Amino acid sequence: MGKRVLYIKPSAYATLNGDIRSYLEKYSDVDTEVEVWSMPRGPQHLEYEYYQALASQEILKAVLRAEQEGFDAAVIGCFDDPSLDAAREICRDMVVTGPAEAAMGLAASLGERFSVIVGRDKWVPRMRENVVKYGHSAHLASFRPLGLGVLDFHRDPAFTAQRMREEVRRAITEDKAEVIILGCTMEFGFFEQLQQEFGVPVIDVMLAGFKHAEYLAALKQKIGWCTSRVGKYAPPPASEICDWGIPADYDLQGLWLAEK
Amino acid sequence: MGKRVLYIKPSAYATLNGDIRSYLEKYSDVDTEVEVWSMPRGPQHLEYEYYQALASQEILKAVLRAEQEGFDAAVIGCFDDPSLDAAREICRDMVVTGPAEAAMGLAASLGERFSVIVGRDKWVPRMRENVVKYGHSAHLASFRPLGLGVLDFHRDPAFTAQRMREEVRRAITEDKAEVIILGCTMEFGFFEQLQQEFGVPVIDVMLAGFKHAEYLAALKQKIGWCTSRVGKYAPPPASEICDWGIPADYDLQGLWLAEK
Amino acid sequence: MGKRVLYIKPSAYATLNGDIRSYLEKYSDVDTEVEVWSMPRGPQHLEYEYYQALASQEILKAVLRAEQEGFDAAVIGCFDDPSLDAAREICRDMVVTGPAEAAMGLAASLGERFSVIVGRDKWVPRMRENVVKYGHSAHLASFRPLGLGVLDFHRDPAFTAQRMREEVRRAITEDKAEVIILGCTMEFGFFEQLQQEFGVPVIDVMLAGFKHAEYLAALKQKIGWCTSRVGKYAPPPASEICDWGIPADYDLQGLWLAEK
Amino acid sequence: MGKRVLYIKPSAYATLNGDIRSYLEKYSDVDTEVEVWSMPRGPQHLEYEYYQALASQEILKAVLRAEQEGFDAAVIGCFDDPSLDAAREICRDMVVTGPAEAAMGLAASLGERFSVIVGRDKWVPRMRENVVKYGHSAHLASFRPLGLGVLDFHRDPAFTAQRMREEVRRAITEDKAEVIILGCTMEFGFFEQLQQEFGVPVIDVMLAGFKHAEYLAALKQKIGWCTSRVGKYAPPPASEICDWGIPADYDLQGLWLAEK
Amino acid sequence: MGKRVLYIKPSAYATLNGDIRSYLEKYSDVDTEVEVWSMPRGPQHLEYEYYQALASQEILKAVLRAEQEGFDAAVIGCFDDPSLDAAREICRDMVVTGPAEAAMGLAASLGERFSVIVGRDKWVPRMRENVVKYGHSAHLASFRPLGLGVLDFHRDPAFTAQRMREEVRRAITEDKAEVIILGCTMEFGFFEQLQQEFGVPVIDVMLAGFKHAEYLAALKQKIGWCTSRVGKYAPPPASEICDWGIPADYDLQGLWLAEK
Amino acid sequence: MGKRVLYIKPSAYATLNGDIRSYLEKYSDVDTEVEVWSMPRGPQHLEYEYYQALASQEILKAVLRAEQEGFDAAVIGCFDDPSLDAAREICRDMVVTGPAEAAMGLAASLGERFSVIVGRDKWVPRMRENVVKYGHSAHLASFRPLGLGVLDFHRDPAFTAQRMREEVRRAITEDKAEVIILGCTMEFGFFEQLQQEFGVPVIDVMLAGFKHAEYLAALKQKIGWCTSRVGKYAPPPASEICDWGIPADYDLQGLWLAEK
Repeated sequence: MGKRVLYIKPSAYATLNGDIRSYLEKYSDVDTEVEVWSMPRGPQHLEYEYYQALASQEILKAVLRAEQEGFDAAVIGCFDDPSLDAAREICRDMVVTGPAEAAMGLAASLGERFSVIVGRDKWVPRMRENVVKYGHSAHLASFRPLGLGVLDFHRDPAFTAQRMREEVRRAITEDKAEVIILGCTMEFGFFEQLQQEFGVPVIDVMLAGFKHAEYLAALKQKIGWCTSRVGKYAPPPASEICDWGIPADYDLQGLWLAEK
Repeated sequence: MGKRVLYIKPSAYATLNGDIRSYLEKYSDVDTEVEVWSMPRGPQHLEYEYYQALASQEILKAVLRAEQEGFDAAVIGCFDDPSLDAAREICRDMVVTGPAEAAMGLAASLGERFSVIVGRDKWVPRMRENVVKYGHSAHLASFRPLGLGVLDFHRDPAFTAQRMREEVRRAITEDKAEVIILGCTMEFGFFEQLQQEFGVPVIDVMLAGFKHAEYLAALKQKIGWCTSRVGKYAPPPASEICDWGIPADYDLQGLWLAEK
Repeated sequence: MGKRVLYIKPSAYATLNGDIRSYLEKYSDVDTEVEVWSMPRGPQHLEYEYYQALASQEILKAVLRAEQEGFDAAVIGCFDDPSLDAAREICRDMVVTGPAEAAMGLAASLGERFSVIVGRDKWVPRMRENVVKYGHSAHLASFRPLGLGVLDFHRDPAFTAQRMREEVRRAITEDKAEVIILGCTMEFGFFEQLQQEFGVPVIDVMLAGFKHAEYLAALKQKIGWCTSRVGKYAPPPASEICDWGIPADYDLQGLWLAEK
Repeated sequence: MGKRVLYIKPSAYATLNGDIRSYLEKYSDVDTEVEVWSMPRGPQHLEYEYYQALASQEILKAVLRAEQEGFDAAVIGCFDDPSLDAAREICRDMVVTGPAEAAMGLAASLGERFSVIVGRDKWVPRMRENVVKYGHSAHLASFRPLGLGVLDFHRDPAFTAQRMREEVRRAITEDKAEVIILGCTMEFGFFEQLQQEFGVPVIDVMLAGFKHAEYLAALKQKIGWCTSRVGKYAPPPASEICDWGIPADYDLQGLWLAEK
Repeated sequence: MGKRVLYIKPSAYATLNGDIRSYLEKYSDVDTEVEVWSMPRGPQHLEYEYYQALASQEILKAVLRAEQEGFDAAVIGCFDDPSLDAAREICRDMVVTGPAEAAMGLAASLGERFSVIVGRDKWVPRMRENVVKYGHSAHLASFRPLGLGVLDFHRDPAFTAQRMREEVRRAITEDKAEVIILGCTMEFGFFEQLQQEFGVPVIDVMLAGFKHAEYLAALKQKIGWCTSRVGKYAPPPASEICDWGIPADYDLQGLWLAEK
Repeated sequence: MGKRVLYIKPSAYATLNGDIRSYLEKYSDVDTEVEVWSMPRGPQHLEYEYYQALASQEILKAVLRAEQEGFDAAVIGCFDDPSLDAAREICRDMVVTGPAEAAMGLAASLGERFSVIVGRDKWVPRMRENVVKYGHSAHLASFRPLGLGVLDFHRDPAFTAQRMREEVRRAITEDKAEVIILGCTMEFGFFEQLQQEFGVPVIDVMLAGFKHAEYLAALKQKIGWCTSRVGKYAPPPASEICDWGIPADYDLQGLWLAEK
């Protein structure tokens, strides 16, 4: 029984989709089938809450479609975990996770304190909210901004790597970080060299989110553990959604059926 | 100099808009002009995170339009404060608030502990997150669900009032609540009788949100205090939004202009 | 129906009372009548907890007298909010607030993180306790002391402004503050220039406290919301107070009547 | 070298002073000299914050006088620890503590969770603030009110004991308390029988406060540890106090001297 | 490349080792080789901290031996995660985890609030400390004791299942739990029926710990992420250990070598 | 009635036992009899969790033996308070404490914020956990490492004193510490000079732990307060321990008797 895992690139930036798929396949389980979807419209990065709100409609549509197509798990590929709670509400069988949930949980078990290497100062307040939400306030050593935007990381990889090196060094020596999180999925591909150079775990959040999705898929298949449908993630009634004309108004035909 | 305040009803339920406007005008400042807008499409209530995500696009469009039309302040009329952070990012002059921020802040200054009378159990996890976010964990006496949905409150007002009475009594005697919050904007209109009967402040969150918006508008006009544009609420660049074709793709023509 | 709001200057320093009244009137609502009372005896500033304890007797007497004279609201004009809880216990109709409660609540809604520009290091521990009490621990970027006492701020305003400028700059650039609080009522009058210069909201706590009192007065008049008389602010019995001879012993004749 | 320890009864209720002194002497160290002072005027109990504010003037005067008379330590005998921070500011050599600080610290080391048996519901909010202030939130099992006022406890001791028995039983069986705190100094004298009956530590807060004061006095004498005069407890300048006429206006002649 | 995962039964109770191995193999990955080791001496269960302290020596010896024998990961099979921090210090290549870390992290991502079904009241204080340590205070709905000891669960499985059913029902209906944790590894084997009956995820902590160990082993093999050797888990110097004669005195010959 | 207090040196380093005994006697009560025991085998310092785990067996054996020999109180002389919870479980009459519990509780009452002068960076994570456990997060100004190991402090006392002086100065001026804790029992003997030089309380944790043990012994003798045997510290049954052969296997003959 194989696992089908979807990497949702929640922005309308598809340039690297092939690279990302290859990257994930390099680290995937033997029985995992990977797909990468980016969004058909919307912002090309999600550095603002407004962009995340705009993107939510397409993200959640992708989640509905993925479940219909039989994926076992999906990861919403942005370190802010946008739309994650809503996605869990509308999944019946598919499990969903996000890079922040996955990476922080992992980092907190590999060491006592982690630092997050982010792109810009602007990102910090929302990420700090997630640190609190996921229960890791006591593990946060620091945020260390690179002064780069999401789309800059792969423009001049040598420069990016150099800036990362500087901030990782400060995180370890000044902030006493024991684990490093590269706090943006588009910082993918840099961890290996840093990990080797500094000798501490360096978490690539794209990988962390993907592997966690794969792991949750396996737990669901083997043990039946999946998102609780009671309380916070209790699902909205499809009949109500159809009565309100949501499928037509939001281009979701076939994804919500009254009898669901 | 008068104040223009917009009450954004973030669902596609317009039936009571006239009543709501009259209700707010009854309590507004003499120099305040009130409008009530509901959404042209989408869910008729926001009891699920998925509904809030669906609604976000229209809410944020309304915010953009309201600013363009010269409103001084807006309140997003749902006790979950949906899209509030994103709304603040995209406002240049208009201030925005939400009923939860307003009501909890007020309740915490009128007494030590408040109870929130909610519709269903399902609402509690997200509202509890807001209690934490707004810093009122130590003030929360309890959530007390009525077993009613958003659209039920005004169907049989006598029954609703009776259920509220029961839960308010328990909140005061068993949970030691000193202040009561009626935790849904559609619970509007019930506070007065309860307040009289129980002799403790009973916060109508529609009113609390509206009055707070009015107050913030006054502070902006008189003192110049408005949302910081540094850090968490730093605004996205209009040029980027236009380059990506967002205005056309999201039906926002004229609301985002590249030179902004 | 106009509002009468009292600004209680809780120290025996009356030199600037006229200036303060003019200052507040400049920003008050059209229907607000402002008075400023300072204390007839006691410390001239409240930088020590001992001074605040000494001052409490006159502050609370002023509160009793203000209610008797029909004020709708009062603000105890010191950023430590001295005697605020006790004041709430003894008010029947008048609402009371303090600059810290008002300013911090406001700052937390205008941005994610605020810095407080204080006079001396000594003030910080007690103010930090208030940050916790009011639920804003997660919003505190820093305290930044000026090295000036309460009575120094208006001695050499140009120097004060210069020092403020230096610390505000550090708060924004080093501590990532998004909002600035000038953490002493006697720092009044400096906010406007700083706000213009730095482009972030700068909260004058005298104004913040006064406007909040005015707002609470309006809510009481229009909606009937006022301090809960159950639990934390339940009032002491006047009969007991009279039996013990408190009115005579504490110079409170006529302010406590057994039949109250 | 003997120790002189003062028990400050912070209310104007002297009826039991002799009993209290005998009670404390029964448990004191051999080299300790005990005195009990009650206040010359003011409330006879401190169940309200207003009463604590009224009492503060006499409490702090007693503290000044005690230091002048050479006491080594004092305890302010009310479980709300009123005026404790201010008292520490004005002591040069004498150390001061309160029953809440002492009893909660002790209880937290004798077991994981404690319940506090209080007089009335009204007391709870302020005491809960002290639980937080002293860092024991995680140790609080419950507050259990007896429905009795401070002056009731010794009116009908058999009834009081019976009510305590009921609430202690509930605290242990329902709230899983491992240690009991009798949360009012006037609940003194009941602990022994309860302790024997229930087999868990029952903290008499009068004793806990007194013994802690005695212990701090010993540490000061033997090791030189006493209240830090830097930061939170930095003392006000006597010269300023004299310049303002405080000694004359507050009946403190001889207690503040300009050269101090 | 297969994974070798060790299940350390940290007590001297080997009766069910074969059953446990079969149980784990039923859920393991195809490339995982499982072993189960129990301790050669010591307590047969770890319900007391004293027992955990006694057991620590054998647990840590097993960890050293397991690494020497080339295991990729180990899980210390007790829901208190005894000796986990020390185990991480002394591992060079093997990763180690515990059932509490694994189960709580998982539960917090499957729902908002979990309840833990424990054996006895006695267990609760230490487990609550772990809830805090792992950052899940906000997710804890309740502890629900069964009134059974570790060795009782499998004595009368029908009775155990019945008691679990009662407490799970209360956890869901009264405490609003969305996920259930069976808070003892010896509660293994009961989850499936409960999960089916109640329709919420029921976490078997033995499985959760084992699968997490397997997952960490895979991350280490594929991505190189393993315990940080900087800070909290920095390893003790083998030379010092040898100099002190630890290997001889603690029966650890061959497990610590000076040149390590 | 005299008190017998045991200072447990939890490492196998006996060189300074005589000095330590003299040191403690210099500060002990007149009726206290002091003994110092070090461990017969094991690590010579406890800088690693592994070392603390190794040492636990001898520490707990010493505790059992001490109780049998009639000691009234013991202190486990390491600032990590190793094995303290387990020690409390197995004591019937003897009370036990640790230097961290004692020193932090004391420091928090002598000032608002304390800094801890530690040996190495490595120590900080575990000590920070204890700061949280004991409820003092809000009081922690900083940890300041000296770059010295436990066994270094008394090798070159002049150098150690010099390094302490540097870090104490930084703690006071940069971190605003009001109280200093010398965070290792082997930093004993340095406090007096630092205290005199800097004018703030400097807590020697060996002394703080010892005096607290002495104080708890006195409270037990005079008032009957001792460790609760309900809940967290409920004792393991001796019969079970004997049935399992623990006394023979762990060299504890005569210390556990089935009839206990």
